[in-house]
Amino acid sequence: MFYYLHYCFLFIELIFSFMSEINLKKLSEELGLSISSVSKALHDSYEISTETKKRVLAMAEKLNYQPNPFARGLRKNKSNTIAVVIPEIANNFFSLVIDGIQLVAQQKEYHVLTYLTHEDYINEVSTINHLQCGRVDGVLISLCGETASVDHLINLQHTGVPIIFFDRIPETMECSTVTTDDYESSFKATEHLMLAGCKKIAFLCVSRFLSITQKRMLGYQAALQKYKIAFDPKLIIQCNNDNISNQAILKKLLSRKVRPDGIFASVEKLAISTYYVCNDLKIKIPQQLKIISFSNLRTASLLSPSLTTITQPAFEIGKESAELLFRMIKKKNLGGYMNKIVLQSSLIERNSTVK
Amino acid sequence: MFYYLHYCFLFIELIFSFMSEINLKKLSEELGLSISSVSKALHDSYEISTETKKRVLAMAEKLNYQPNPFARGLRKNKSNTIAVVIPEIANNFFSLVIDGIQLVAQQKEYHVLTYLTHEDYINEVSTINHLQCGRVDGVLISLCGETASVDHLINLQHTGVPIIFFDRIPETMECSTVTTDDYESSFKATEHLMLAGCKKIAFLCVSRFLSITQKRMLGYQAALQKYKIAFDPKLIIQCNNDNISNQAILKKLLSRKVRPDGIFASVEKLAISTYYVCNDLKIKIPQQLKIISFSNLRTASLLSPSLTTITQPAFEIGKESAELLFRMIKKKNLGGYMNKIVLQSSLIERNSTVK
Repeated sequence: MFYYLHYCFLFIELIFSFMSEINLKKLSEELGLSISSVSKALHDSYEISTETKKRVLAMAEKLNYQPNPFARGLRKNKSNTIAVVIPEIANNFFSLVIDGIQLVAQQKEYHVLTYLTHEDYINEVSTINHLQCGRVDGVLISLCGETASVDHLINLQHTGVPIIFFDRIPETMECSTVTTDDYESSFKATEHLMLAGCKKIAFLCVSRFLSITQKRMLGYQAALQKYKIAFDPKLIIQCNNDNISNQAILKKLLSRKVRPDGIFASVEKLAISTYYVCNDLKIKIPQQLKIISFSNLRTASLLSPSLTTITQPAFEIGKESAELLFRMIKKKNLGGYMNKIVLQSSLIERNSTVK
Repeated sequence: MFYYLHYCFLFIELIFSFMSEINLKKLSEELGLSISSVSKALHDSYEISTETKKRVLAMAEKLNYQPNPFARGLRKNKSNTIAVVIPEIANNFFSLVIDGIQLVAQQKEYHVLTYLTHEDYINEVSTINHLQCGRVDGVLISLCGETASVDHLINLQHTGVPIIFFDRIPETMECSTVTTDDYESSFKATEHLMLAGCKKIAFLCVSRFLSITQKRMLGYQAALQKYKIAFDPKLIIQCNNDNISNQAILKKLLSRKVRPDGIFASVEKLAISTYYVCNDLKIKIPQQLKIISFSNLRTASLLSPSLTTITQPAFEIGKESAELLFRMIKKKNLGGYMNKIVLQSSLIERNSTVK
């Protein structure tokens, strides 16, 4: 059976090598060996002597012979490729995460496919379905804001493809995750605003139904409770992905008769939109409104005023997630293997929350 | 020959389908057809009736049959994948470009491999060599800062893989490119600083040998000449990729006895570093130093002071590059086909250059 298979692959490679400049035929001519022997040598067959293998490899290198990756992928049932599925890329957090992932992938000589869901559930499902059929050896994903059901991800998991969720993870699925201390850091952020004198703190979020948003909201609520401030659902502000409509939402919020004196933005772009709206409405930060935000903005300390942030270790999240994924890919038999890594964010005090 | 080839692929698919849950065997059992007929129907063979094809496709859909992409890639000699090779991703310009590329790739149902060179020539060469063997149908690349020779890219081009260069393009190679009006916009930027009263304008750059840097420098020099200001090579400041060492370089520049009164940053991160150094050295922008920068920073107008920018249409660069690439992929025979697209940047005046 495997003998037959070898010849079958050899045949396939031959067909396709006609299309490339350097192929098995050319290699075999240069070496004075049969095509079959060259192929076996390249595949490290026990039938070929070490000396011959060395000769073949040296010539293959000299002639820059490159095996077709699809033939190789088929042969090894391995793609040497991982997929990264994220909501958006023009986002400091996610681009830093990818930087961390790429570092590890490059070390492992893996290729990285990137997919953007643009917070669209249909996109996410169709992307994940495309990854079911052996295109990748593993998947790193941060859920889109609309993800209601995780059936598509459970299906993928059932096909044996290792998946690591990072930052935005599902709650209803047994899986490996890399997250940060969202509850604790949100508690600290809210407490920080209250210690600076805020009594009416609005919580800005994008994807209310994501577990990460809920954890951050719970941290916010717990801090309110500690300081005996009643929770007001009207101060939970659901924004979306479009900066222009977010500015309209925030303009409405900051034009209320009794407007908030503090803003806790659970997403960086909402803090930026708040700054724009404050400029428009001539609301002074921090005198009239204090702002804290989850953010990986390099310019946070250069803003007018500088922005107090909860900064997630984005690069490390990418690195840890990729390392965990490669451990899972290596393990092969994943039966029940799970790992939950939690990294710490830091609260960096700046002028937007000065008393 | 092709008849034989069909059976060979069928055999390969069968071998690998044993590893997936839904395979040709299961499909054929459900349909009461031979495996060979099912395979032919899925490949739209003339030997199979339209009615049978419809039945097979319906069942394949029902059972969520996914052909192995490697078997398909081999069969069609097409990967449905493109590669994007960029110097870095934690960079507003490049992440917006990728956003544009992904939009087009998604419409075309293509997969996108992303590679970061981190401005390292060896990385770039090894990445490009990996792409020679059929892994991708086309390549979009922005050169790394160290690229001295383009032999690796010429080799790739010779294998018939379409390549589009964007933003950082080679000068010594016949190729299709998407760029912006670097010379003109740099001329305008320098003129803008001079009209605001600057007489000693430093030009900050990262990769002096890239043609894009040279074009920007030529625009800078031409503007100096127009206003009869002598070119001073000591005001060409070569920085690098590390923010900390760049801050040291800029600290030295701004501590000179006769220090510049204007900064033209040809790269966004150098403007940010200049802001940090000005904060440290208590140099007032724009009173003591005016700054203009190539930048796609969303927070440019929120900085203290707001930053005057030359903003490149990064998203459109990605979109145009990808569309051009797909036209070339479709064309197949590229003999001499070339296209040079030039988009316009905009100068956005803000407070960092106020008179």
